[in-house]
Amino acid sequence: MPSSPEVLATMRAAFLDAPQQIDIRDTPTPQPGPHEVLVRPTSVGLCGSDVHFWEHGRVGDLVVEQPLILGHEVAGVIAAVGEGVDPARIAERVAVDPQRPCRRCGYCLGGQYNLCRDVEFPSAPPVHGAFAEYIAVPADFAFALPDEMSDDEAALLEPLSVGIAAVRKAGVVPGSRVLVTGAGPIGILTAAAAAAFGATEVVVSDPLETRREVALAHGATAAIDPTAEQIPEEHFHALVDASGAPRAIDAGIRALRAGGTAVMVGMGSDRIDLDLFRVQSRELRIEGLFRYVDTWPVAIDLVSTGRISVADLVSAAVGLDDLNSAMRRNGDPDVMKIVVRIQPRDSRPLG
Amino acid sequence: MPSSPEVLATMRAAFLDAPQQIDIRDTPTPQPGPHEVLVRPTSVGLCGSDVHFWEHGRVGDLVVEQPLILGHEVAGVIAAVGEGVDPARIAERVAVDPQRPCRRCGYCLGGQYNLCRDVEFPSAPPVHGAFAEYIAVPADFAFALPDEMSDDEAALLEPLSVGIAAVRKAGVVPGSRVLVTGAGPIGILTAAAAAAFGATEVVVSDPLETRREVALAHGATAAIDPTAEQIPEEHFHALVDASGAPRAIDAGIRALRAGGTAVMVGMGSDRIDLDLFRVQSRELRIEGLFRYVDTWPVAIDLVSTGRISVADLVSAAVGLDDLNSAMRRNGDPDVMKIVVRIQPRDSRPLG
Amino acid sequence: MPSSPEVLATMRAAFLDAPQQIDIRDTPTPQPGPHEVLVRPTSVGLCGSDVHFWEHGRVGDLVVEQPLILGHEVAGVIAAVGEGVDPARIAERVAVDPQRPCRRCGYCLGGQYNLCRDVEFPSAPPVHGAFAEYIAVPADFAFALPDEMSDDEAALLEPLSVGIAAVRKAGVVPGSRVLVTGAGPIGILTAAAAAAFGATEVVVSDPLETRREVALAHGATAAIDPTAEQIPEEHFHALVDASGAPRAIDAGIRALRAGGTAVMVGMGSDRIDLDLFRVQSRELRIEGLFRYVDTWPVAIDLVSTGRISVADLVSAAVGLDDLNSAMRRNGDPDVMKIVVRIQPRDSRPLG
Amino acid sequence: MPSSPEVLATMRAAFLDAPQQIDIRDTPTPQPGPHEVLVRPTSVGLCGSDVHFWEHGRVGDLVVEQPLILGHEVAGVIAAVGEGVDPARIAERVAVDPQRPCRRCGYCLGGQYNLCRDVEFPSAPPVHGAFAEYIAVPADFAFALPDEMSDDEAALLEPLSVGIAAVRKAGVVPGSRVLVTGAGPIGILTAAAAAAFGATEVVVSDPLETRREVALAHGATAAIDPTAEQIPEEHFHALVDASGAPRAIDAGIRALRAGGTAVMVGMGSDRIDLDLFRVQSRELRIEGLFRYVDTWPVAIDLVSTGRISVADLVSAAVGLDDLNSAMRRNGDPDVMKIVVRIQPRDSRPLG
Repeated sequence: MPSSPEVLATMRAAFLDAPQQIDIRDTPTPQPGPHEVLVRPTSVGLCGSDVHFWEHGRVGDLVVEQPLILGHEVAGVIAAVGEGVDPARIAERVAVDPQRPCRRCGYCLGGQYNLCRDVEFPSAPPVHGAFAEYIAVPADFAFALPDEMSDDEAALLEPLSVGIAAVRKAGVVPGSRVLVTGAGPIGILTAAAAAAFGATEVVVSDPLETRREVALAHGATAAIDPTAEQIPEEHFHALVDASGAPRAIDAGIRALRAGGTAVMVGMGSDRIDLDLFRVQSRELRIEGLFRYVDTWPVAIDLVSTGRISVADLVSAAVGLDDLNSAMRRNGDPDVMKIVVRIQPRDSRPLG
Repeated sequence: MPSSPEVLATMRAAFLDAPQQIDIRDTPTPQPGPHEVLVRPTSVGLCGSDVHFWEHGRVGDLVVEQPLILGHEVAGVIAAVGEGVDPARIAERVAVDPQRPCRRCGYCLGGQYNLCRDVEFPSAPPVHGAFAEYIAVPADFAFALPDEMSDDEAALLEPLSVGIAAVRKAGVVPGSRVLVTGAGPIGILTAAAAAAFGATEVVVSDPLETRREVALAHGATAAIDPTAEQIPEEHFHALVDASGAPRAIDAGIRALRAGGTAVMVGMGSDRIDLDLFRVQSRELRIEGLFRYVDTWPVAIDLVSTGRISVADLVSAAVGLDDLNSAMRRNGDPDVMKIVVRIQPRDSRPLG
Repeated sequence: MPSSPEVLATMRAAFLDAPQQIDIRDTPTPQPGPHEVLVRPTSVGLCGSDVHFWEHGRVGDLVVEQPLILGHEVAGVIAAVGEGVDPARIAERVAVDPQRPCRRCGYCLGGQYNLCRDVEFPSAPPVHGAFAEYIAVPADFAFALPDEMSDDEAALLEPLSVGIAAVRKAGVVPGSRVLVTGAGPIGILTAAAAAAFGATEVVVSDPLETRREVALAHGATAAIDPTAEQIPEEHFHALVDASGAPRAIDAGIRALRAGGTAVMVGMGSDRIDLDLFRVQSRELRIEGLFRYVDTWPVAIDLVSTGRISVADLVSAAVGLDDLNSAMRRNGDPDVMKIVVRIQPRDSRPLG
Repeated sequence: MPSSPEVLATMRAAFLDAPQQIDIRDTPTPQPGPHEVLVRPTSVGLCGSDVHFWEHGRVGDLVVEQPLILGHEVAGVIAAVGEGVDPARIAERVAVDPQRPCRRCGYCLGGQYNLCRDVEFPSAPPVHGAFAEYIAVPADFAFALPDEMSDDEAALLEPLSVGIAAVRKAGVVPGSRVLVTGAGPIGILTAAAAAAFGATEVVVSDPLETRREVALAHGATAAIDPTAEQIPEEHFHALVDASGAPRAIDAGIRALRAGGTAVMVGMGSDRIDLDLFRVQSRELRIEGLFRYVDTWPVAIDLVSTGRISVADLVSAAVGLDDLNSAMRRNGDPDVMKIVVRIQPRDSRPLG
């Protein structure tokens, strides 16, 4: 296996052993298989699903039954390459689409690899994630970064990918009026993506003033406090719900003009009470979103050309050893995005 | 106004004066305006919405405040033409798309005239419908019929249009597996349309055996009794709900494979309890349907070439004078479609 | 007819009486019909087709057989309204989509009113254009302007509409690599539109350095001199040809990656020698473009928010009396866009 | 390697050693790799490209530099399975999509695996085809056949796939009026596919009466002799050219109504003289077609349900030893499709 000299046989990794209990310990360094690269993560974003696994040991049907490495918002450096991958990629800085589709089913062959039933997703049990010194990923899902992009920015390409996937599904183009309900990281980055796709109006609703302010700095043309102001009815071409809150969804659907589209991104409500009569009489479309397809190249372009700024969404940077406390802190209203910066024990420079 | 000689200044019409109270009386014959034709209805289907207006005097926000002529599933003969219409069309047999869009709003100019906010729809108050000797309609919404198509068949092009619009929205193509929940006239004609669009599987679910048998004779490849059998899960590309029943909708959504589309046609449930988690994790699409756009030419082609048969869906043919009893009878489980055959008082042959 | 007080029974207009012979004389002021407004043009762009009619008396099959008023890139002020239009619109500043579709054919009802066979187009014989003190247009095709937009900018919304229609047809989205061949006004505004739609790369090719510089100031990320440099092969997702030159088209098609789309906008070559083998083996798409559909609202938004700048494309502003010389001058390589500013004889301020 | 007992270490295969010179000799039996199956071809159609390679030793840039096994229209039986494939598939009757895409490039991940630059295509040098006792293919590109489908029918699913891909690209739906120029096997099967997709009119043009008759028996609603009759102008929604003849293409493009689509399937003319003015003024779309994506399941469904009949297109069935003479005969006007039936030397029944 062609690799950087510093890759050791074992690596440090953060294992979730039980709810709210992450332990850092050594484990064998994974080997990149054919068409894979071994990535040394440098900055890994903390996602709400990581926190949910940490807190409850499960997300829906997905149960952590064995110690699990979390983390899937990955920026890093290629440290080794598997068979069939050009060794010249060693030392390349990359951001990673964490999905590992089967490449053989109808969804994969049909351009919807996010729907692959056999997809592996790092940090979803039992597949280890990136809160570790190394992770092996498909070579074509590790995207080269321009020099000017920082590791933290690159880690945020994952939530930005959700925003891009959402505005694509919503059909946002110049002229679109878009409502985004919820101004957490996904809502903010959806608003930013909507602006980058040319939307004429991007209205973000969130009860927290600090979050509305962040939205206004990231593409929103207006921000609404839904506890105090009325969202205009039958006005928007598209709704992206990034709140998961039934009341926000209901208000959002009333805000759609006839023929409009609602993309449901926010998790939290397993079932909602849907105004079917409105969906029918206004011929609305409700779409679920599950991850993303082919978003990293666009995300890299939008961030590296300055059309979307993500660096200022990083509220804090912590080390692997601080993961338990970072998890606890993630729900604070003033926290937008925590990134985990991972330093290799061996400090020899790469290359 | 160029017209047939038999058009008189007044006509007989069936007025809904109060709930469950239709009276036949004379009223001035309407005049076709510019680009309109005056149609003498020969066969007019009885729609569930007609019955709902008759029974309750309202449908949702639409209230019958003045005596109203119902009926909008119209076949007939052109009896007169307005300015700008070729008089050669007099005596032409036609079927009518009953919508009268404004032709000036963004929806009309954008190919979605069904969403026009200023659309007039005969039989929706206060716009008079076709249970009368004459009705004026836009010339380009009155479609010439081939000789071989009967008046009753032509009247059924309206519910067939709903089915065509539904399968278009559902994206049905050869290879599609389609589930239709509910086997009333709309469900049956949706199944027939799905088959005509090339669907590989067309499964219809309905608790009534007689209706399942009709479905099997109109394009369904299988019929399921949902009270006794299980609908396969995660199997279908498309669901068209023609039942409006929350349980059928829920089972239908579970029956969709990832990436599938549900088109909601059946009225009845203003709000439903939606499995949002499934919509998200399977990336489903839920679409409302409101009437139809550009369906009559296709419907005429499918029926006149024998690819869809509709004549056998007519359960009974009645006269204008029998409307009250026909309304009462419409809910019978063995009634599929009642048509009202309207004879002009003046029996002189046209032309 | 509700109107401004200064509207007189006759108006001055520029009639093309014979090739290269425009005469200014009085003619009856047109009356706005139902759903029309009477617009007093303030700035009207000079289009290549105007110049072609002026020079040759014809464009293809369209022959000027009677004195004709040219001009269809129209900004102005509403001076009177026809039946059915709110008189409050009098004095509204507007830009005009010059098309007058029939609103009744399949194309009009299907959202493709640009393909209407009965469309009337001002300046295309025998329909008079806007080089006159007044022109009547459909009220819904006259779009209100924000205060901050100048008349000249508003006149340029028409060529910008071509650019918007071209990038829509080319499917330009964030991530797209777009090649525009030819940097006249249409090429420049196509490049600007491509950038506004989020294209990652916008490469413009033109042999004239001055035009390449204008392109670089209007959205192009690179400019190529095709007489000296090689256009990269199999690289672009989309080509918009705004040159009409067979060699540029051929190089542009070679520049498309497999699955790419070429939109043919530039007029000039009636027939071209097409590399069919490449179109087949690379599965390319070649699309003709004919005018535009529903572009003014987007164009107004993009210009008024500063995302596209058009004011600096105006090379000269002339009066009605200078039309013959302006026509002569239009072909100069340093001329990008000439606008005709029309002053009413009656100088009383509107409103 | 799990395999049928009769698979031997060597197999008989037909090698094209030089133009017009095929020799049958033994060669090592290929081994199915991971996720592959070894197919024993039973019926393999003879394609025009096979004949072109045989006659000239090349097709365009593709040159036969080493002895090559031709043949890619494959029906057969799975004789062995590679790693990762269920051994229960041994003895399964299959039809084969012959493409072997890389599964890693943007085209493969984007649902356009036919455009993969690294695709391997059996019978295109240097990749061996199926005129042999065995061929290894990806397991997911070998599609199980229903019992009622014959081997010859299954072999014809490949040209039918071209027809399906063409009508998909042409957007054929109920209501479409389709013109197919050229009534060879591809033209015939395109007409059949257009009918199966619901087209209202399917007009086929070909100078040969025998071929027009075959077209009329396979979905065409009318057949035209272009040397004697006029093809209606501006009438069709879609053209599929299956002739490759410049005059047919030109007439076909004139036959398209505004907004229509031409799909170019027929090979033969590297460059054509295109009526660009018409493409622009009628806003036509010209599309190249390169093979097919995801067509076998639909093709199997359409043939096995009797909606498309292909068996009667087989003009002759020959053995491997007759390939040279079959190649010579293929151009005869009365030959539609020759199939090569391959018998294993070892006659023990499978299973």
